[in-house]
Amino acid sequence: MSTDGSLNPESDSFDSHPPFYIGQHSSTRSETLTDTQHSQVLDRGFNFVTSPITNRHFFERVVALYKAHLTEKELWSRSHTTAKPNPSLPGPVVPTLTDEDTSYFPCSYVGSIVAYSSPWTDLCSSNPDISSISRQVLNIEVAYANFCGARSIIIPGPRRDGSGGGVALYARAIQEALQAAGRTNLIIHMPMYREPGLEEKAETLTSLFKESNGPEDVNAGEIDLFSAWDSWNTIRLVCNYSTRLFYIAVRIPRRLPEKELQERWFAEPLHYLTIAQKTFQENRNRHPSLSRHHQELINHYMRLKNAPWFILNDVGPAIESLEESADKMVTDFPTLTEANQTLKESRKSQMPNLNVFVAYLRHLERQQPPFSILETPTLTSFQDWLQSPLQPLSDNLESATYEMFEGDPVKYDQYELAITEAMAEWKVLKKPSAIGAVDANGNPELVVAVAGAGRGPLVTRVLRAAKKTGTSIQLWAVEKNQNAYVYLLRQNKRVWDNQVTVVKTDMRGWEGPQPKGYTNVRCKVDILVTELLGSFGDNELSPECLDGIQGHLAQPHGISIPQSYTAHLSPISTPRIFADLKTRTGGGDANAFETPWVVRLFAMDFVAQKVPGHGRFQQAWEFVHPVDVLRADEFADENGVSAKFATAGGGSIAGSSGTNDHNARHCHLTFVCRTRGVIHGLAGFFESVLYAPQIPGKQPVEISILPDQIDRKSKDMISWFPIFFPLKTPLEFPQDTELEVSMWRQTDDTKVWYEWMVEVFAWAGPKTRMKFGTTELHSSRKIACLM
Amino acid sequence: MSTDGSLNPESDSFDSHPPFYIGQHSSTRSETLTDTQHSQVLDRGFNFVTSPITNRHFFERVVALYKAHLTEKELWSRSHTTAKPNPSLPGPVVPTLTDEDTSYFPCSYVGSIVAYSSPWTDLCSSNPDISSISRQVLNIEVAYANFCGARSIIIPGPRRDGSGGGVALYARAIQEALQAAGRTNLIIHMPMYREPGLEEKAETLTSLFKESNGPEDVNAGEIDLFSAWDSWNTIRLVCNYSTRLFYIAVRIPRRLPEKELQERWFAEPLHYLTIAQKTFQENRNRHPSLSRHHQELINHYMRLKNAPWFILNDVGPAIESLEESADKMVTDFPTLTEANQTLKESRKSQMPNLNVFVAYLRHLERQQPPFSILETPTLTSFQDWLQSPLQPLSDNLESATYEMFEGDPVKYDQYELAITEAMAEWKVLKKPSAIGAVDANGNPELVVAVAGAGRGPLVTRVLRAAKKTGTSIQLWAVEKNQNAYVYLLRQNKRVWDNQVTVVKTDMRGWEGPQPKGYTNVRCKVDILVTELLGSFGDNELSPECLDGIQGHLAQPHGISIPQSYTAHLSPISTPRIFADLKTRTGGGDANAFETPWVVRLFAMDFVAQKVPGHGRFQQAWEFVHPVDVLRADEFADENGVSAKFATAGGGSIAGSSGTNDHNARHCHLTFVCRTRGVIHGLAGFFESVLYAPQIPGKQPVEISILPDQIDRKSKDMISWFPIFFPLKTPLEFPQDTELEVSMWRQTDDTKVWYEWMVEVFAWAGPKTRMKFGTTELHSSRKIACLM
Repeated sequence: MSTDGSLNPESDSFDSHPPFYIGQHSSTRSETLTDTQHSQVLDRGFNFVTSPITNRHFFERVVALYKAHLTEKELWSRSHTTAKPNPSLPGPVVPTLTDEDTSYFPCSYVGSIVAYSSPWTDLCSSNPDISSISRQVLNIEVAYANFCGARSIIIPGPRRDGSGGGVALYARAIQEALQAAGRTNLIIHMPMYREPGLEEKAETLTSLFKESNGPEDVNAGEIDLFSAWDSWNTIRLVCNYSTRLFYIAVRIPRRLPEKELQERWFAEPLHYLTIAQKTFQENRNRHPSLSRHHQELINHYMRLKNAPWFILNDVGPAIESLEESADKMVTDFPTLTEANQTLKESRKSQMPNLNVFVAYLRHLERQQPPFSILETPTLTSFQDWLQSPLQPLSDNLESATYEMFEGDPVKYDQYELAITEAMAEWKVLKKPSAIGAVDANGNPELVVAVAGAGRGPLVTRVLRAAKKTGTSIQLWAVEKNQNAYVYLLRQNKRVWDNQVTVVKTDMRGWEGPQPKGYTNVRCKVDILVTELLGSFGDNELSPECLDGIQGHLAQPHGISIPQSYTAHLSPISTPRIFADLKTRTGGGDANAFETPWVVRLFAMDFVAQKVPGHGRFQQAWEFVHPVDVLRADEFADENGVSAKFATAGGGSIAGSSGTNDHNARHCHLTFVCRTRGVIHGLAGFFESVLYAPQIPGKQPVEISILPDQIDRKSKDMISWFPIFFPLKTPLEFPQDTELEVSMWRQTDDTKVWYEWMVEVFAWAGPKTRMKFGTTELHSSRKIACLM
Repeated sequence: MSTDGSLNPESDSFDSHPPFYIGQHSSTRSETLTDTQHSQVLDRGFNFVTSPITNRHFFERVVALYKAHLTEKELWSRSHTTAKPNPSLPGPVVPTLTDEDTSYFPCSYVGSIVAYSSPWTDLCSSNPDISSISRQVLNIEVAYANFCGARSIIIPGPRRDGSGGGVALYARAIQEALQAAGRTNLIIHMPMYREPGLEEKAETLTSLFKESNGPEDVNAGEIDLFSAWDSWNTIRLVCNYSTRLFYIAVRIPRRLPEKELQERWFAEPLHYLTIAQKTFQENRNRHPSLSRHHQELINHYMRLKNAPWFILNDVGPAIESLEESADKMVTDFPTLTEANQTLKESRKSQMPNLNVFVAYLRHLERQQPPFSILETPTLTSFQDWLQSPLQPLSDNLESATYEMFEGDPVKYDQYELAITEAMAEWKVLKKPSAIGAVDANGNPELVVAVAGAGRGPLVTRVLRAAKKTGTSIQLWAVEKNQNAYVYLLRQNKRVWDNQVTVVKTDMRGWEGPQPKGYTNVRCKVDILVTELLGSFGDNELSPECLDGIQGHLAQPHGISIPQSYTAHLSPISTPRIFADLKTRTGGGDANAFETPWVVRLFAMDFVAQKVPGHGRFQQAWEFVHPVDVLRADEFADENGVSAKFATAGGGSIAGSSGTNDHNARHCHLTFVCRTRGVIHGLAGFFESVLYAPQIPGKQPVEISILPDQIDRKSKDMISWFPIFFPLKTPLEFPQDTELEVSMWRQTDDTKVWYEWMVEVFAWAGPKTRMKFGTTELHSSRKIACLM
């Protein structure tokens, strides 16, 4: 984070980082604020407040009801000889609300009030009467708040984690409340982990009636960092990944947990970040501040497309006894640098009552790093947004799509560099050219083809590289899209000085270049340039297209740019995308879970660790061009099935003749996970060597979208988002797990698709490795890429 | 097993045990048998034979192909400077079959030949060429055998278990072969476990080319009994529980494994049991025999509705060199008892060449225990057959359905006993009767009602009990089914001597009995007899019906028979039922996985152990009648909602008024599993105390369908099959697991349904218990039982 104060809050760039919305919550508040009180809180710099749905009166009625029920039970026992309680004794039925039970009513500013359900309930209670009362209270409150127009309702999280059935009871109650809530969002108040001493010491039915807390946690004593997340995972699973339970409020603890747990929560759907007064520390000047770690956490979260809002819990005076605490008001907030003095003065005059904690958060708001090139509103809107993969072979792209891709200078700079290296090397190594001609300087005249030229960005780069290296070239641009062909012809006249021969054909049907000055002669190509790569490398059928054109490549010097590419995988947890896919499946897209989606993965958690022998990202397979073997050449040369193949192929998929089998692939990868968790699918990436110079000491020219390589190989390249292979059912796994991923690239000579499955093996002790679970075999065959 | 020879094979009951079908397999056979050879094998007593699909000629062609490919690869490497192999080098493509490659052709007896795919393939190979060749060979063979008319094709199982991706590769290949196979069944040859020294030492591509067997198994050295089952579990999961992969062949090992593993395999879909010669032992007379354990295993399997067939592997001479082995033919098979001498003689004359192993199996066939009362063809046909649960409240049953239920003497005997005990006790304890009258002997005149009388079986039993105990009764029969009402009136005249008052009404709307000799007077009932119990006790709404009528029960002496009932659960593995449900879901029954099915569970595995504190079967909840509390009485008395309730109930499900909430239930049960496995759902059972006499020393009269209680409490009672609550996704779990089951009986005042979910916790070390997995929350609300 930048702390040098270089950001002038008065400058134009002041709005170039995410705004903070700050709410106020008081755990002792039992009535909705009055109009006046509401205004007072807003005056303190807050944007919204919370409100209890019911009041003390209702609480007391419920307590009286339960007491009456206990008396009734007691009487029943005394009047019956049997020691066994009657299981059919009706439990207490909570009465409906009256106007005395609540001060929450529909009003003009109800939309800026966040409803808060009663904290004294205990949905997890092992006492069936208490859990039943709690469930009824929740249903009543949620239904009433929904009636009043609440947009979201915060519900206290489960009071216990782990086993004993409490969390299942809690989750079941939330599922029911979602039905009572109409279209309102329910927000479960979860801690990041159960921090000893930071638990709310609320008065609950359980504590009031001195009920047992249920079975003792067997892990009592040891802090299990992931148990709160476990509970959340169970709740949203039971609620079927409801998009209305899509937001939770994580209480930021005073001591932040390990990075893995922070990342886990980051992937979860978050609505509010709550910070209690005790999470703040005092700085040198005895003013509230947050640690560097907390600041980083907040900055990280604020980069989300739907950034969370803040709720400050019990942070000093909000309405009660304003005068007493006037000394706590901000008058000379010292962590603001001198540079901000002017602003401070103006703020002071505008908001004399600014709460010190709000003031500090406003300070953090201004101190956030500005939006980077990758954080334009457009790119941010792509966060976790599922795009159907392109079918570039069967569909014709539109001009705007080409234009979008052309807008990435990094990618084309790398291409130009690769072409330049290849041309330069040609001279140094004195390679002959395909047409055998040399130019005036005795340098070979190279035949270059751009196949799939689109609107011509690579044509431009080839011309530049040739100029830079002083290479004479004959340049062909091959394009199947008849509309783009028109554009190419125009570009050739207007921009390229008619240096290019534009051919309208599918590259797989191209008859090859006809060298200038010759008639009825076809020659070979020295440098073939294509940009057919998808997010997973081969997923837009680059291997098949290049197979179809590589017969025209000169032997043995002909070069394909790219020379090779690799596909890479990593298992990830991405609950928001899973919820989105569930909605799509419900909405009629039966193949949603078997579609490889292109998506800018953002709110997700890479669950795998980098350990010796196993990376977080692992290579699935590789393609190299040209395919330097006889058989593929035979196809290309003879434009048909060779004699060798006429009798072959009964064993290929669905009886195909197997001519594309050499482009099938299979991989088996093992990923190591230290902590337990859940995965929703596999993230896919690619890398490509555009050109690796043969001259020793020269570095290969590469592009990469691998998160741990992109900055080194092609920083700020934005042409490709990752690909995502979903799983139909979230796959849970224990600690010390090895996730074994099997993936196939399948083909039946007319189309290409992927199949994937994951197996869980875990170590139970240092020597015992056992099978724990298996997903289905997923297949994108139904939406396969057509050749 | 009975070995006393009391079964006369010549008697009428000789066919009253399952027949054995015995096949012959030779691992060295490489050609299909000729007509003559085929007849010779049948002459030896076999019912069918196996046949390889392809022959040695094909094998040698494939080997040559692979050798040529290796040479090609070698040449490529030599001609290229790069050390890296080219990933796009096409692999070998297996040629299609010619008539020289096979002697398997369509013929008249093709239906009695089991096709056997080539054992020299290795689908699991970590060498991609070998696994690819193997996959192609399998596809070619399976497609060809399907063309010839094979009904089923046996495929050698995976050669390795566990990790490394081999099993995933194998499973994927089988899934593809299922498509090539048309409608033919594929049968995977699995061992029960990998018995050291009993593995087939077949010549495979892997051994031939001295390829590595893939990564070493990390558990090498320790025998992991469940690893073969693990592999099978993965294969059928990848094949999406295909019903054409519904049968597997388990090789019976020489040493049978622990009971848990036997039970696990018993639950799996089995087609053939294969026994190798070395599994047999020699008896005293040096003739082949099987151990007692093996015999028990076979007897157990033969009780399946679709009992497996036998395949004898390499059991001595079948066709080759018949003359040499004539001395091995059966001439004096000594384990047959003297009683069977006649049969033996006749067999000898009919089948002089009977193979000694076949002869022994025929002996076992005759020695099987005869079919019991529970093994009538009708009852056997119910094995694992899913029945939709009854809706007795909203549907009217047909006479035949009543008749079926009436056919269970055990149940009605227990009812009669309970009624008898209740009447006898009345006198002993000198309880007053509801109408206050006494008979000529000074005994109270009891008012008895049978509610839901159907065709009257309980009316008959009440009359018998009254006669037995010398009790004067006034008897009412209440029935809502207008058709059964006609039958009751007829029975009253013809059988019951007009002793019964028949009332046509839903019992919940009955106005109560009008005592004889009074007009315009309603009295109370002393003994109320009902038979409203379902397989899960309360699932046919007995609690709701009894609530509706219990207002008529006299206070405080009135008795409900049954007095109480409990529901019980146990998690089970039942892959065949899961496959059936998958088919139903595909066939349009969207709720198949959320329906509690009534099913005679048979081929299944109770995965839970009985350990201190945790049973294999655990009680979910209990209902007791009458519901002895004010509130329920208020309803019944006032026929409406009491003042107390008018303001209540906003918190009940979907805003219902909560009048039936006292019949809602929840349970949380923990089941302990020692070995790892998979569950497909929960088996449900019930027990009921019909009447528990108050006189000390008297035993309660009970009925039970709990597997570990039925023989003690109500042996041979057949009225109820268990209930089955399915899971949408099979839930795998590791060893030392605790399965936590949460179940709810939910109600919204108009209907009743169940909800269930399972969580997996496992012990990783003595102190660490962790969450491993969670199912969805399942709900039968959409097909709820209407009140």
